[in-house]
Amino acid sequence: MRNIPGVTCVALIISVLVNILGSHGGKILVFPVDGSHWVNMNLLIKGLHARNHNITVVRSTSSWYVKEKSIHYTSITIPLPEVISIEDQDFFVSFLQKMLEIQQGGASVLAFISFYWEMLTSLSEIHRQASQLVVEMFRNALLMQSLQDTQFDLVLMDPGLPGGVLVAHQLQLPTVFNVRWITSGEGHFIVAPSPVSYVPTSGYAVPDKMTFTQRAKNMFHYFLNICIDTFVVSPHYNRLCTQYFGPDTNFYHLLQSIDIWLMRVDFVFEFPRPTMPNIVYIGGFQCKPSKALPSDLEEFVQSSGDHGVVIMSLGTLVKGLPIEITSEIAAAFAQIPQKVIWRHLGEQPKKLGNNTLLVHWMPQNDLLGHPKVKAFVAHGGTNGIYEAIYHGVPVVGLPLLFDQFENLLRLELRGAAKVLDVTKLTSQGFLQALQDVLQDPSYRSNMERLSRLHRDKPLQPLDSAFFWIEFVMRHKGAAHLRTESCKMPWYAYHSLDVISFLIVSVLAVLATVAAMFHILCCRPCRTRKLKQE
Amino acid sequence: MRNIPGVTCVALIISVLVNILGSHGGKILVFPVDGSHWVNMNLLIKGLHARNHNITVVRSTSSWYVKEKSIHYTSITIPLPEVISIEDQDFFVSFLQKMLEIQQGGASVLAFISFYWEMLTSLSEIHRQASQLVVEMFRNALLMQSLQDTQFDLVLMDPGLPGGVLVAHQLQLPTVFNVRWITSGEGHFIVAPSPVSYVPTSGYAVPDKMTFTQRAKNMFHYFLNICIDTFVVSPHYNRLCTQYFGPDTNFYHLLQSIDIWLMRVDFVFEFPRPTMPNIVYIGGFQCKPSKALPSDLEEFVQSSGDHGVVIMSLGTLVKGLPIEITSEIAAAFAQIPQKVIWRHLGEQPKKLGNNTLLVHWMPQNDLLGHPKVKAFVAHGGTNGIYEAIYHGVPVVGLPLLFDQFENLLRLELRGAAKVLDVTKLTSQGFLQALQDVLQDPSYRSNMERLSRLHRDKPLQPLDSAFFWIEFVMRHKGAAHLRTESCKMPWYAYHSLDVISFLIVSVLAVLATVAAMFHILCCRPCRTRKLKQE
Repeated sequence: MRNIPGVTCVALIISVLVNILGSHGGKILVFPVDGSHWVNMNLLIKGLHARNHNITVVRSTSSWYVKEKSIHYTSITIPLPEVISIEDQDFFVSFLQKMLEIQQGGASVLAFISFYWEMLTSLSEIHRQASQLVVEMFRNALLMQSLQDTQFDLVLMDPGLPGGVLVAHQLQLPTVFNVRWITSGEGHFIVAPSPVSYVPTSGYAVPDKMTFTQRAKNMFHYFLNICIDTFVVSPHYNRLCTQYFGPDTNFYHLLQSIDIWLMRVDFVFEFPRPTMPNIVYIGGFQCKPSKALPSDLEEFVQSSGDHGVVIMSLGTLVKGLPIEITSEIAAAFAQIPQKVIWRHLGEQPKKLGNNTLLVHWMPQNDLLGHPKVKAFVAHGGTNGIYEAIYHGVPVVGLPLLFDQFENLLRLELRGAAKVLDVTKLTSQGFLQALQDVLQDPSYRSNMERLSRLHRDKPLQPLDSAFFWIEFVMRHKGAAHLRTESCKMPWYAYHSLDVISFLIVSVLAVLATVAAMFHILCCRPCRTRKLKQE
Repeated sequence: MRNIPGVTCVALIISVLVNILGSHGGKILVFPVDGSHWVNMNLLIKGLHARNHNITVVRSTSSWYVKEKSIHYTSITIPLPEVISIEDQDFFVSFLQKMLEIQQGGASVLAFISFYWEMLTSLSEIHRQASQLVVEMFRNALLMQSLQDTQFDLVLMDPGLPGGVLVAHQLQLPTVFNVRWITSGEGHFIVAPSPVSYVPTSGYAVPDKMTFTQRAKNMFHYFLNICIDTFVVSPHYNRLCTQYFGPDTNFYHLLQSIDIWLMRVDFVFEFPRPTMPNIVYIGGFQCKPSKALPSDLEEFVQSSGDHGVVIMSLGTLVKGLPIEITSEIAAAFAQIPQKVIWRHLGEQPKKLGNNTLLVHWMPQNDLLGHPKVKAFVAHGGTNGIYEAIYHGVPVVGLPLLFDQFENLLRLELRGAAKVLDVTKLTSQGFLQALQDVLQDPSYRSNMERLSRLHRDKPLQPLDSAFFWIEFVMRHKGAAHLRTESCKMPWYAYHSLDVISFLIVSVLAVLATVAAMFHILCCRPCRTRKLKQE
């Protein structure tokens, strides 16, 4: 398949054919986010394809996980003029190493500021690229006309990179988000009231019951996130809004006006908080019963006897921890009677025990569902956490990046995980944490309780996602479920104008009364006084 | 059956027998509210009974709709020493007449204040009675011991009269509310953030998109409701909290701490607004497909030919409107080609046409589901409105009391109803409204759109109610879905302490900088000046 400027040729032809021939299902335009986010979106796409919908996925020439060819979707590949592959593993490894250095206290204030600055620059660059994808689409009149002609029923998108809302707005299509993170924070903060007195903000790992200091810090993080949104993220998209839709269209209002938020959250795991009628919770929609293990892995697992197995994985983004840390972990593993399966990509750690099997990839869900798996050493990405909850396996947490600290804190507060600081990790500390989770039955029973609650739903999360996607297609939106309060000026939304008016009115009444009192009572006194003089 | 002090004897024996013999279902203690509320609760009770649960209903000797004997439940009858039957129809007729007089402008300011005072006194008396029921239960050690021994799984209650929460707290039972109204307002206001800038408060019929004046009035109503709650309603229950649970137990916290709110709301009808994870929407759970009409009624309906039928009902509470008004209505009905079925209890109106059939009772749901029924003249009670939405029948609204004004405004804003002011009703005006709704197809098509949206649910509202009631029974509560933020002091909840601290800190920093500037810059100047002098 050869790319013509701005769009994959065959994709267009298929897309138009679909339109001409018609279909019993709907036509869905998908804007995914790469990396682990794609794992989630792809699951939805496969399900929607199986339900007879025609899916068109918008990807860029720098897409990493999102392949051009698939039996489940047609793709439109946008060539980005300048490809900075931020979805490169090395980027995250170097990012992680700098962060570990700072957390270990080995960096100066200047290094910290420089690291933070670099982080913001990267964030800005990611969103500049994402907005550039929109520019490339809008510039391509042929593509835009073809998208218009296809008469899509819906835009389904991951607003982690939210450019797709501009395309959806241009095509006047109802939109569904598959979301947890949006622009620079957790999705709820854009659309639902979020009292910072008990709702921890993104980037601050803190319980929902906070001390005064924690509440003050939480508010600081809240304003920090607003600043990042306002000055780092939104300008990229607001510029395009002004350019293509005129000065009255605000990027934030576009985000807030979408129909359904399929939120990858479950309150078994997340702290309870205010929500909105158009937020549908699909946390753990990727979870499924485990399948049989490959025979060699099953043999290894069975060889663990009654002691069982511990599995370890640090997710898709990070290739590996520094060898000093992995060697401490390996030494601890070597001391436990359990067998260990460790998904490990970097340099082989020293002090590796005979009980430990290093693998480049493992069937994580099938292992977690295996009765012999006793604990899961995890970095705290949401996919892995939901799988652990689904199968009721307690966790030893090694948070590294992003939301992983917050995620693991939630599990720890529910008594289902022990969390360690990777920058202070010692063999002894790791061993102690492992033994706690393996030997204290409360970790397992708490995780099993979460599992029972998580599985007990009137409609399974994936079915819920399909229902609401198809609901929006059937009814051409879900306007009755969303407020337009976001379009109010902020002072009106918070009633500050009314409160000011009431205060001024009360003061005016008091002042009038005081003045009248002064005129009626004091003046005669003064007159009498003057007369007496 | 003879009442022993404070409890029906046989009920107790059955209750204990149920406990001894065991059951596959659960044991549910129900605190209902009488009148139209009971219609809803009874539907849940019948369903739960059919699902093999054992239901015990707490009623008083003055109960009106809630019968002592039923095949679906066992009852416990609490003899109230002083029976003031506020659930008497005459009470509402006289109440309505006074209100009509005031609305027609025929009453002085003094009469208005006296009417409002009377309303508050009645409200206080209703809650005094409801709290007295709790006192009678707590005083009866035999009853309380028997309730304890029965080991109920759940308290299910309508918190319109919220005394049951005290009993649930005493018995330490998980609790589910079947709710729309609670104490003096709409249930959401107790448990979910409710920005008064776009959430209309109870008792103020206004759209969600308000002018500045409307927002100011909405805030006034909000504070009025808080005052009524604080000074008229809560004292009755807070006194009991202090008496039985000590000074640390707050009645409001008990309300806010219950497990699941089965909210009789659907956003097809209600304005979208913030909600909470433990609110489950079951609006319209009473709706069901229509059955065949009795043969005589079917014959009457069929005799309408292509013109069809208009039906009219003003609900269960109001016996009838003054004859001057009903005669205007009758005269208008006489002029339309449709046949009319009118549920009417009072004096026969003058000018009644041949096309109008007065009945004492009608199978409202079966009529609304009949294809010949073209319009519904209704008072705007929620049960009737949900039935009209379910069957897609447009409404001519005659709101009389309570929430009926707000309910009908919502339908009107959706283009599915025409609402009239009953105090200014003329034959001509009523005829015009009827003809509009009958002849302009938009009313019907809007109502049918609402009907399609309302019926398109992944789980029907009644099934949702059963699921969540049984969920709470299975897991002994749903603590993971409710925040405990309500237990924070109000200033902390709203972060006022943090904001004050931050403001003071900023001011302190500014003051310090200013002082240092003063010391460093101005003092040398002054010194120089002094020296020069």
